Amino acid sequence: MNKWVYSFGKGVAEGAAEMGNLLGGKGANLAEMSSIGLPVPPGFTITTEICTAYYDAGERYPDDLKGQVDAAMAVIEESVGARFGDVKNPLLVSVRSGARISMPGMMDTILNLGLNDSTVQGLAARSGDARFAFDSYRRFIQMFANVVMGVEHYRFEEILEIAKEDRGYRMDTELTPGDWQAVIETYKKAVVESVGKPFPQGPQDQLWAAITAVFGSWQNQRAITYRKLHDIPAYWGTAVNVQAMVFGNMGDNCATGVAFTRDPSTGENMFYGEYLVNAQGEDVVAGIRTPQLLTLAAKAAQGSDLPAMEEVLPEVFAQLNEIRLTLERHYRDMQDIEFTVQQNKLYMLQTRSGKRTAPAALRIAAEMVEEGLISKEEAVKRIDPASLDQLLHPTLDPDAPRNLYVRGLPASPGAASGTVVLTADEAERRAAAGEAVILCRVETSPEDIHGMHAAAGILTARGGMTSHAAVVARGMGRACVAGAGELRIDPTAGTLSVGNQIVAAGREITIDGATGEVFLGCVSTIEPELSGHFATIIGWADDIRRLKVRTNAETPRDAATARQFGAEGIGLCRTEHMFFDPDRIVAVREMIMAEEVEGRRRALDKLLPMQRADFVALFRIMQDLPVTVRLLDPPLHEFLPHQASEMEEVAAATGMSLECIETRTLKLTEANPMLGHRGCRLGITYPEIYEMQARAIFEAAAALASEGLSVKPEIMIPLVSMPGELQDLKRRVTAVAEAVEAERGVSLTYLVGTMIELPRACLLAGEIAETAEFFSFGTNDLTQTTYGLSRDDAGAFLPAYEAAGLVECDPFVTLDQQGVGELVGLAAERGRRQRPAIKLGICGEHGGDPASIAFCERLALDYISCSPYRVPIARLAAAQAALQT
Amino acid sequence: MNKWVYSFGKGVAEGAAEMGNLLGGKGANLAEMSSIGLPVPPGFTITTEICTAYYDAGERYPDDLKGQVDAAMAVIEESVGARFGDVKNPLLVSVRSGARISMPGMMDTILNLGLNDSTVQGLAARSGDARFAFDSYRRFIQMFANVVMGVEHYRFEEILEIAKEDRGYRMDTELTPGDWQAVIETYKKAVVESVGKPFPQGPQDQLWAAITAVFGSWQNQRAITYRKLHDIPAYWGTAVNVQAMVFGNMGDNCATGVAFTRDPSTGENMFYGEYLVNAQGEDVVAGIRTPQLLTLAAKAAQGSDLPAMEEVLPEVFAQLNEIRLTLERHYRDMQDIEFTVQQNKLYMLQTRSGKRTAPAALRIAAEMVEEGLISKEEAVKRIDPASLDQLLHPTLDPDAPRNLYVRGLPASPGAASGTVVLTADEAERRAAAGEAVILCRVETSPEDIHGMHAAAGILTARGGMTSHAAVVARGMGRACVAGAGELRIDPTAGTLSVGNQIVAAGREITIDGATGEVFLGCVSTIEPELSGHFATIIGWADDIRRLKVRTNAETPRDAATARQFGAEGIGLCRTEHMFFDPDRIVAVREMIMAEEVEGRRRALDKLLPMQRADFVALFRIMQDLPVTVRLLDPPLHEFLPHQASEMEEVAAATGMSLECIETRTLKLTEANPMLGHRGCRLGITYPEIYEMQARAIFEAAAALASEGLSVKPEIMIPLVSMPGELQDLKRRVTAVAEAVEAERGVSLTYLVGTMIELPRACLLAGEIAETAEFFSFGTNDLTQTTYGLSRDDAGAFLPAYEAAGLVECDPFVTLDQQGVGELVGLAAERGRRQRPAIKLGICGEHGGDPASIAFCERLALDYISCSPYRVPIARLAAAQAALQT
Repeated sequence: MNKWVYSFGKGVAEGAAEMGNLLGGKGANLAEMSSIGLPVPPGFTITTEICTAYYDAGERYPDDLKGQVDAAMAVIEESVGARFGDVKNPLLVSVRSGARISMPGMMDTILNLGLNDSTVQGLAARSGDARFAFDSYRRFIQMFANVVMGVEHYRFEEILEIAKEDRGYRMDTELTPGDWQAVIETYKKAVVESVGKPFPQGPQDQLWAAITAVFGSWQNQRAITYRKLHDIPAYWGTAVNVQAMVFGNMGDNCATGVAFTRDPSTGENMFYGEYLVNAQGEDVVAGIRTPQLLTLAAKAAQGSDLPAMEEVLPEVFAQLNEIRLTLERHYRDMQDIEFTVQQNKLYMLQTRSGKRTAPAALRIAAEMVEEGLISKEEAVKRIDPASLDQLLHPTLDPDAPRNLYVRGLPASPGAASGTVVLTADEAERRAAAGEAVILCRVETSPEDIHGMHAAAGILTARGGMTSHAAVVARGMGRACVAGAGELRIDPTAGTLSVGNQIVAAGREITIDGATGEVFLGCVSTIEPELSGHFATIIGWADDIRRLKVRTNAETPRDAATARQFGAEGIGLCRTEHMFFDPDRIVAVREMIMAEEVEGRRRALDKLLPMQRADFVALFRIMQDLPVTVRLLDPPLHEFLPHQASEMEEVAAATGMSLECIETRTLKLTEANPMLGHRGCRLGITYPEIYEMQARAIFEAAAALASEGLSVKPEIMIPLVSMPGELQDLKRRVTAVAEAVEAERGVSLTYLVGTMIELPRACLLAGEIAETAEFFSFGTNDLTQTTYGLSRDDAGAFLPAYEAAGLVECDPFVTLDQQGVGELVGLAAERGRRQRPAIKLGICGEHGGDPASIAFCERLALDYISCSPYRVPIARLAAAQAALQT
Repeated sequence: MNKWVYSFGKGVAEGAAEMGNLLGGKGANLAEMSSIGLPVPPGFTITTEICTAYYDAGERYPDDLKGQVDAAMAVIEESVGARFGDVKNPLLVSVRSGARISMPGMMDTILNLGLNDSTVQGLAARSGDARFAFDSYRRFIQMFANVVMGVEHYRFEEILEIAKEDRGYRMDTELTPGDWQAVIETYKKAVVESVGKPFPQGPQDQLWAAITAVFGSWQNQRAITYRKLHDIPAYWGTAVNVQAMVFGNMGDNCATGVAFTRDPSTGENMFYGEYLVNAQGEDVVAGIRTPQLLTLAAKAAQGSDLPAMEEVLPEVFAQLNEIRLTLERHYRDMQDIEFTVQQNKLYMLQTRSGKRTAPAALRIAAEMVEEGLISKEEAVKRIDPASLDQLLHPTLDPDAPRNLYVRGLPASPGAASGTVVLTADEAERRAAAGEAVILCRVETSPEDIHGMHAAAGILTARGGMTSHAAVVARGMGRACVAGAGELRIDPTAGTLSVGNQIVAAGREITIDGATGEVFLGCVSTIEPELSGHFATIIGWADDIRRLKVRTNAETPRDAATARQFGAEGIGLCRTEHMFFDPDRIVAVREMIMAEEVEGRRRALDKLLPMQRADFVALFRIMQDLPVTVRLLDPPLHEFLPHQASEMEEVAAATGMSLECIETRTLKLTEANPMLGHRGCRLGITYPEIYEMQARAIFEAAAALASEGLSVKPEIMIPLVSMPGELQDLKRRVTAVAEAVEAERGVSLTYLVGTMIELPRACLLAGEIAETAEFFSFGTNDLTQTTYGLSRDDAGAFLPAYEAAGLVECDPFVTLDQQGVGELVGLAAERGRRQRPAIKLGICGEHGGDPASIAFCERLALDYISCSPYRVPIARLAAAQAALQT
């Protein structure tokens, strides 16, 4: 015989906290509290297996369920000393759902079940409070008729309103027992009118209908949607909890409340909660009466003049405070509890792990380690790495006044105020003069990089969460609001407008990248504080993690930020970003325009000292840490001039005619630049470019070596799809290294490897590893090619996909483990089989995503690399990943 | 002890024909001819293993080689009755290379080896012909000094010229023995002057130097380049053949010749060859004397007045003719032979399989089956499927006069003449009026499809072998010359120009898609004849093959052509090609321009009857054969208007403002359309488009069903990367089918499947197969995404790759088995594991490529699909693939 029903109460229980899958979270914790001797009204849980069995059998229960429920009801009756359906001394129960994880408000609850026209009389008699009894009965009819029978709420509200109007009442409390009886009769008629069936009087009928309704609510539309959104499988099912009712509304020695065992906002170790005297649970949250604070300390701190529970019900409070400590010791975590006091007797109705802010999470975890409650590993596991993001950026002062202008997408966290500028050059110029600016563009392109870097924040009218602006801003740690669709940007007039509300360039705005809001004027912000608890936990994480954490950085500023955040090297230095610098772009364009190798070499000769200086600066910051430099990757036309004035500048620099420049520009235009003439394909066609870059790297390394610094460049060849490409280019890079060694009389330490970012490179990783000394998985491009999906263009259809429930998570945010991940795993395996010591890392956006980091740990990669502002997140996530495996 | 040396001659041999890998082709066949009793001058072969061993050991021979060579030389001496180096009766030998497969002219040969200042006297005495002896000696010095010692040819030519001038001679034959002796002395001095060493007199020194030179020639630059071009691995090595000399130049009872056992041009079963009396082998090919024909029949046929061998040397000819039959019976193939007659005695110097034209190959194979020489399977195996291509298209009349205008790439075979037109619309208009036109464009785009289809041929100034023009033209079987770089097209002036040679639109030109040549005016062409032998062999192939062969076709004309060529259904009907029709493009654009679903539905309602008519026509042609219809695939902006006049047309049709249309066009522009909003992504965002197409298909099927035709549509959803996409769209397609079934009261038979064309689809093939009833591998796009390589843009760098030897074969022509192939294999396996009966096919360009077809056979796919003109090729290749496995 299967056991479908688990009883709890009176200091014993058949279930336990760890049986959450079977009993649901609420049921398991009621059982647990019961076991450890806490005062829990007796009850039982019908398991989640029944939910599944019920649906599998075509909405039928197993034959042996009824007997088990009857037996469990008898246990409650015995415990409470009342009988279900007894007209003298009726037992009332609540029927509540309870899934594995909390799905707030998604499923249904029925209270006061067991009342009918007879038992309500018994309740009135025994409680000595007829008003309470009839109020409970009408509440039960309302809830039951709605949840079980599908009668709409408004029907009952209407009846109650009319009853009050007829009698000239304003408050529900003014109704007499007789009034309530009349209302109840009208309610019952409304049920018959509405659904053609009378309200059931038999308590057993009520009970089974309620149980079935709760199981039924697992498949209601709200629940299905919630599960889809939160990735909860349907087969989990819900449990049903049937529990003896207790009443917090039977007089002034009654109360009800909710509390957190520590302050969920700051994490401080103090009891924090609210209660109401003579009230039911729903009244605390309904906001009709102002809830009162539990402790005197909280009352003092908040300057409240309502009495604290500590003073109103001192014995019960003392008992509750004891329970608080018991629960924390028992569960070893901050708890969110519900309780009811019925005639000076305390009952616990729920406990669960409490939600908390990020700073609170850090403080609670750190202090619980100090208190000896949990280990450092547990502390590290408890922090959601993504939650740290909010701690690393300025935020709007919550008390500052604000004037909303427009909304966009929260593309990169942080709040920033500054003057509106409409071009990257202007942004750079003003920023150089010490002004904080917000760069506002329809959308950004790689040519805006210097302006984005100079700006305090970026605002775009077009583009999604993975648009150029969003990705680059997140990488740089700049605040960004993207895709503010109502915003019009008129570069000619030099204005922003939303409807007819115009903001001229030079005026101040404030953007909040965490919410996507844009405000007029300057809203004051609060700088992030990396508190002691943060540092403590991250320090523990560092002791635990195996994965090294590097950063994606190419500017000294980013590199310095990343080191400060604990980066252990650079995993991706994109040399092309250095090419967009206004000082250099003319030489870069001269190089591109040259039809012959000599012309290219002349232009490259101008770039060499600049690139060398870039690397000297970076290497100096990174000192003894490894620096992976990716040779030129984007298609050359990304560097080309678009505007007439720029074309003229290039014409002047190269001595070419404007027509020539236009023709060459046209010739370099590509149908699909992502799949075009870029990456190592540039190295194969124009070897002199990669040779210049290799020389700049090696000369920089040689220069620092002469100062006694140990520099470890790792030269990365991008977009390899054929082993021969890497062989050819490694040979050239090595030749340059040997030349520099001979010229400078130094010995250089370096690696040559490749970015694995194409499906074919994954498949041929074994052959590629014959040449490559390291692989860095470029999972951004690998995701694009594996899916055949351009990040830049996905905005046109991804919303429809999301609407249709076709994408659960953005594969550009969290690595697609099924598809892209299989390729990465395969490449890691084949690469290692060929070259066991090969160094493996990841440098796509995924390097800063906790779920993806866990995947990297499972593949035992050597390092992850992410943008500077995600380094602390990655350090924590890497530790958690190490603890998982 | 290893055996390094294999002797042959006198009716016995240590080697055999099947030992080609060890002995090289020449050595193995000399041994084989010897074994079967043919008159072969005695000799021996030093194996290819020595070549490898020699290089592996740092250019040293194994110690035991010398003894084996000495012993083999002794056998020759015994057989010939002369001794190597004997001054009275010297044995002379030739030293020739011989690799596994013939590498004509790539390696070196030395004749008359063994002559020196003493032995030449003995040769003179024994032959009684001093002139012959000294001529042979000087030839030997010339060859040996050049090949072995590196003395340049011109040195000897100069000396000989001076000697003739000094004596007032015009012909070499005028030199007396004394004259030759003087020349020889000067030759020897020239050797010393040139290389500082005397010409070696010791025959053993000569022999080993020659052997080493031949092995050395395996690594000369010519040979290395040839191997790279023909994909011959270096480790194969060459063998060296040492053979007793025979002389065809010792008088009028001597001769030398080359012959084919059947006519290599027509395949007719007649002896076909040429000979010269009193000559050496090189004279036949040198062109100094006019070679004579072997047979009286050939002499009569060609109207030659030079005597045939049949009449000049009748006994020897009879013997040779007997040998011809022996060789054909023995080798069971047409042979290419070399022979020498020395004083009425016939010697065979070489036999090998003879090269032949495509028609000859068909005739020989078919007739050899009739003659009982070979089996049908062997006949099928012997035809190079690619060679059939030339039989399926018109070719230029070789005798027609021509005037070359410009050259481009031979992008699609066939020759065509027509008037120059510069736009697709003009092409269609003129073609409709019965005019043959050549569509000339800078490059083509999908909007030119109707013009390309109407044209007899296509000429483009830009684009490579895989450009849009080339791919589409091959698919349609239209002649195409692409990328004629010198051609300028001026649409405003309505002219073509090459330099200052201008051709106005309306004038005639002729293009030859097989050579890439473009001629002024009309050059007459020859229509293809699909001869009886062709049909016979293809019939046998059909009996043998397992793979079904379908075609890629969307027009009735292509479908009819393909059926005529034996297609067994349509594997890919691209519905978008139907959208480009000028009648429809306005409605298509109206649909795209609509911002709301209602607008799209209105436009789709106009398109429905047209699409239905398309399918009715196609289904009628294909009758009971399966037709795979791919729902709309390309990004919508491909259909958008670019020119002002077209925009106005759309504005008129939609009632939208021009500005609106421009804005919407801009909005639809994509950064990487290949990876953008296309394929099933259109189906997800605009379900009404796919629903219209599904309706058109099902209504057409229903209409034909009512005529009693059995229609088998297979509906293909393109660009699936997530299983959910297919689930969603299959549900919609099935709903449409059910609706049509209900409306028409018919029962429809159809499949719903997907194109597997993205790496992720391959990886998730198992899950996709839960929904898909068939997979069609779209290997074009799969190649693009696996390599991260856009076909349209590859032209900018692939030439550099080819120059660097990085690509052996174009992955868009022959399936990349390592990368793309692994994904295809994996998808086939996972798809079958999920759904064992899943139908698997391939519809990329690779479906018509023999090497790729062999791969499909190994994966046991169900069918291949290719362009109509490649159907016969695919039928043959499929049979060969079946025979291979």
